[in-house]
Amino acid sequence: MRTIYWDSGQDEVHLIDQRLLPGELHYLALRDYREVADAIRQMAIRGAPAIGAAAAFGLALAARRSRATAREALLHDLQQAAGVLRQSRPTAVNLGWALQRTLKVAEETEGGADELRAAVLDEALRIAEEDVAINKRMAEHGAALIDDGDTVIHHCNTGSLAAVDWGTALGVLRMAHEQGKRIHVLVDETRPRLQGARLTAWELEQYGIPYAIISDGAAGYFLSTGQAHKVIFGADRVAANGDVANKIGTYMLALAANDNQAPAYAVVPTSTIDLSLAEGKQIPIEEREPGEVLNIQVGGQAVIPAGATARNPAFDITPHRLVTAIVTENGIARPPYSSSLRAAVAGKLAG
Amino acid sequence: MRTIYWDSGQDEVHLIDQRLLPGELHYLALRDYREVADAIRQMAIRGAPAIGAAAAFGLALAARRSRATAREALLHDLQQAAGVLRQSRPTAVNLGWALQRTLKVAEETEGGADELRAAVLDEALRIAEEDVAINKRMAEHGAALIDDGDTVIHHCNTGSLAAVDWGTALGVLRMAHEQGKRIHVLVDETRPRLQGARLTAWELEQYGIPYAIISDGAAGYFLSTGQAHKVIFGADRVAANGDVANKIGTYMLALAANDNQAPAYAVVPTSTIDLSLAEGKQIPIEEREPGEVLNIQVGGQAVIPAGATARNPAFDITPHRLVTAIVTENGIARPPYSSSLRAAVAGKLAG
Repeated sequence: MRTIYWDSGQDEVHLIDQRLLPGELHYLALRDYREVADAIRQMAIRGAPAIGAAAAFGLALAARRSRATAREALLHDLQQAAGVLRQSRPTAVNLGWALQRTLKVAEETEGGADELRAAVLDEALRIAEEDVAINKRMAEHGAALIDDGDTVIHHCNTGSLAAVDWGTALGVLRMAHEQGKRIHVLVDETRPRLQGARLTAWELEQYGIPYAIISDGAAGYFLSTGQAHKVIFGADRVAANGDVANKIGTYMLALAANDNQAPAYAVVPTSTIDLSLAEGKQIPIEEREPGEVLNIQVGGQAVIPAGATARNPAFDITPHRLVTAIVTENGIARPPYSSSLRAAVAGKLAG
Repeated sequence: MRTIYWDSGQDEVHLIDQRLLPGELHYLALRDYREVADAIRQMAIRGAPAIGAAAAFGLALAARRSRATAREALLHDLQQAAGVLRQSRPTAVNLGWALQRTLKVAEETEGGADELRAAVLDEALRIAEEDVAINKRMAEHGAALIDDGDTVIHHCNTGSLAAVDWGTALGVLRMAHEQGKRIHVLVDETRPRLQGARLTAWELEQYGIPYAIISDGAAGYFLSTGQAHKVIFGADRVAANGDVANKIGTYMLALAANDNQAPAYAVVPTSTIDLSLAEGKQIPIEEREPGEVLNIQVGGQAVIPAGATARNPAFDITPHRLVTAIVTENGIARPPYSSSLRAAVAGKLAG
C-alpha cells in the first residue's frame, strides 16, 4: 500500500485522503503545489515522513506548472512554492528537510529550466523510494525490541499512512508480527483527531494483528496492572539531546511507562532528528483550532455545550529521560543521546 | 441546583438524567428501587456522593412499595433491594456505605413495618442533607489551596451533578471563584464518557467560571509549559494508605502534575475513604462495555472501523505518593495518609 505516488502520465501527485478513512479508501489527485499545501494543512495527508515526501512532490508540481523558461526564474518560483509548503505544518521537521534537500538539488543542477524540472522530480521520487527503504530498515531494527507475547501500547498513527509505506513505530510492530511474534496492540485512540482509532486500528485490521482501542487516559491502567509491557511511538521532531516532539499525549504515555519500568521507544528516520536544536523546548508547538476538540458526537448527538471553548495543542515534548531508545534506519540509539543521535545521523551507530 | 430530591407528594425520587445534558435538563421520576439501580448502572446518575444518596432513596422506595406488613418481612425486602442496588456500580464506596447506613437504621428502629418505612425515608433524606452540608465544608477547606490567578486542571465531573449539591473537586473551584479568586479551569474532556466536556463545562458555564476544554492527553503539555499550576479531582474510593481510585485517566494526570512539581489534590467526603482496604490494589475496577469507547462520531460521521474492538476500564488507581493532599469535610489530610486519613474519618484532623 503506497500512501503517496507520482502519476507520470498526468503529472500529478496522488495521495490517500486520510480524512475519509476508515470509511473510504480514496486517492486525491493534485496538480498544483498549493493543493499539496492545503492537503497537508487540512491533514488529508499526515505523518512526518509522508509530509516530507508530499512536500517534495509539491515542488515537482511547482516546477511542472511554472511558466518560467529561464533557470533563475524557475528557481525563484521553486523558492516561493517552498515557502508556501513550509508554512503548512510548523512542527514536523521532515517537511523542511525534504524541501531543503529538493531545492538544493535544483540549485546544484546545471543547465536550463527543463533540466531543473527533471532534477526536482527525480529528487522527489528518490525521497519517496528512500522513505520506503529507510522505514523497512527501521522496522527491522525495532522488531528486535519486541518479544513474543508482548502487549504494546501505540500512540497516534505511525504506519504506512504516515509514510510512503511501512511507517515508523507501527512498521516495527508489523515487522515483529511478520516475524511470527505473537503480539497484541493497545491502540491509543489519540484525541482529538483520533488517528489511532481511525487509522492505526484500520491498518492493524489489514495486517491481521490483534488489537483493542483504548481511551488515551487508560494507558496508565494497563501499564500499572501489568497488562501492557511496552509503549511505542513515532516523532515529528527529535532534538539533539533526545527530547521528542510527538502527537499530544505522548509525554503522559511515556510518564506512565516510566513509572512502571516499561520501556518507551521512539521510532524515527534520521531525517526527523534535528541536531540544530539543543533541546525540545526549542521545538515550535502547533496549536490547532478548538473545533477539533469540540466537534465530537456520541450516539449521533452533540455532547459539548454550545459556546464552549477549547485549547488544542497538537504536540508535546517528551523529555529524553523518559525515552528508553530511539530506533532509526541506522540502528538503535540509546542514552546518552547527545552522542548516539549524532552517530545515528552520521550512519556510525555501533550495533 | 439539586441533582436528586424526594417528592413526598408522589413518593418518588427525582433525579437529573445526566445522559441528556448539556442538551436538556430533565428530571427522571422513579417509583421503584429497580429503576434506581438501572439509573445508576446506565449512568443517568453518576458521581460517588450522588450515587450514595440515590441508593438510600432507592431503599426508601423499596420500603414504600413493599407489601410487607410485618417488620421481619420488610427487613427481608430491604435487604434484597440493597443487594440489587449494591450490584449497580462496583467501584464507588459511597453506594455500599449509604446502603449499609440506611439498613442499619431500619434494623435498629423499634416498632412495626410502618415505623421502619418512616425511618428509612428519614435516613435517606438525612444522607442527602448531610451531603450538601459536607460538600460545602469540603469546598471551604479546599478553596484555601487555590490561589488568585491559578489555572487548574480538573478531571471528570465532580460538581453538583456528582453529588446532591456543590460536589467535591468542582465545589472547591466554585467556592474559590465565589471568594473572588480569579481562576481558570482546563477541563479534561474525560474520555470515554466525556463527563468533563459534557457536564463540567456545562456547570462552569452556570457558575461563570472561565474555562477551556482539553483532550485528556494535553494536560501534560499545559503543566510542563507552566500554563497550568494545579490539578484537582474527586474519587470513587480512597484506601487507608491514600491510594485513590478515580475516573480512568486520573493516574496519568497525577503523574504529569508530579513530574512538574504541581500539586495534585483529591477532594472526597470521608464516606469515600475505605479504611478497611489497606491499599488501592484491593479496590475492584469496573470494566465497562467497549461501545463507550467505539461509539464516537466526528462531524456527524463514524470514525472507527466497523468490527473494531476496545478495552474500557472505568477507573484507575493513583498511588498515594502522587497525591499532594486529600481534602475532606473535616479538613485537609496530608501524607503520611496512614495516620491523617484515620484522623479525618474520626473528625480529629488538626488544622
